[in-house]
Amino acid sequence: MMTLTKVAVVLMSGGMDSAVAAALVRQQGYELAALHVMYGHRTAGRERQAFSDICSTWGIVRRLEVSIDYLRAIGGSALTDPTLPLPEGRLDREGIPPTYIPFRNANLLSIATSWAEVLGAGAIAIGAVEEDSSGYPDCREVFYEAFQRVIDTGTRPQTRIQLLTPVIHFRKSQIVRAGAELGVPFHLTWSCYSREDIACGECDSCLLRLRGFREAGLPDPLPYARLPQWV
Amino acid sequence: MMTLTKVAVVLMSGGMDSAVAAALVRQQGYELAALHVMYGHRTAGRERQAFSDICSTWGIVRRLEVSIDYLRAIGGSALTDPTLPLPEGRLDREGIPPTYIPFRNANLLSIATSWAEVLGAGAIAIGAVEEDSSGYPDCREVFYEAFQRVIDTGTRPQTRIQLLTPVIHFRKSQIVRAGAELGVPFHLTWSCYSREDIACGECDSCLLRLRGFREAGLPDPLPYARLPQWV
Repeated sequence: MMTLTKVAVVLMSGGMDSAVAAALVRQQGYELAALHVMYGHRTAGRERQAFSDICSTWGIVRRLEVSIDYLRAIGGSALTDPTLPLPEGRLDREGIPPTYIPFRNANLLSIATSWAEVLGAGAIAIGAVEEDSSGYPDCREVFYEAFQRVIDTGTRPQTRIQLLTPVIHFRKSQIVRAGAELGVPFHLTWSCYSREDIACGECDSCLLRLRGFREAGLPDPLPYARLPQWV
Repeated sequence: MMTLTKVAVVLMSGGMDSAVAAALVRQQGYELAALHVMYGHRTAGRERQAFSDICSTWGIVRRLEVSIDYLRAIGGSALTDPTLPLPEGRLDREGIPPTYIPFRNANLLSIATSWAEVLGAGAIAIGAVEEDSSGYPDCREVFYEAFQRVIDTGTRPQTRIQLLTPVIHFRKSQIVRAGAELGVPFHLTWSCYSREDIACGECDSCLLRLRGFREAGLPDPLPYARLPQWV
């Protein structure tokens, strides 16, 4: 098996955080292999389009699109179960929000690691954000430290895959600024949990994004159906 | 969310090891929720039949069948890539055999954990065997200890899921004996890597199984196309 230590498998949802994470990994000198996972969630089609557009802009030819419908069959999240209502957007919620998809990121990292081991890639990367985000347990650094050990013990002895979380401690405004410096095509990214035609401006994900742009002092190039008063 | 601490999600391939693992977990008083994962490997159809037959025999109604074709797309294993030849069966091979599917068991455990968290199950179980087996890195206890930490950090704070590996240190002969004592329907299980009509008797998996029955002093109820001289 080849060893291309400067290849990194990057999980790219089509959203802002993973696009900036990918740009930071690219800046470190890695060639990107882009992995997009669809799991039957509400805005899967629009995110896939965003993923494809970003990859084309950056000339990423090594791409893998994976569909794991079982997360929808398993349910338990307002993002994959259409019978559960999306919560009203708010940024001061306590606890785990109903949009949490149980153990989703372990599923994504496992796919990324399988692909990385076959490619001989030296890293996998994910755009998880710990503090300034939705409060999902699988977005915390402690989870990624634990997963690194799973990679080290569950792959071939000669396999070395580093798990990168380049934006884990960024505030959203730092993500916006870093992306702007690195030329991330924010107009191609998609963050809305709710709509696929135009961003709603009301769900948690739109509110987090809008607050990030506001705090960074930069305009969000996406059009919104409705903007909160503070924008 | 309900908490049914006495439910265990058990990964059941249709093979002997996972059937005995399931029987041991059942003996501990757990109600079983049976999870079968198809990943485009050579004998997927026959194994699914075995899974279904075992569940019916035991009256397991909570079943989930999941298809993850991406492992075939990723490749890198003689079990999922039909262009790679299955190695000649032998039990004295050094190193990782070409039937290793990169990081497969992390993918399986992630699915099991997602389902367990939604069910409110208190355990997940897998029939991995460390010493007397094929030498896959993701069949070692150290890997499962690491994964337990990933479960603890990557799920809701109130979620408690114990990862059970009831046969991890069993020799194959112990698995056969334990299964015989617990009434495991060995005639319904399927272990062959190569054929779906009748077990080949030549691949690593058939040889390990046959050696287990021989060392246990019990007859294997499955018919074989060809038996090694030592049986």
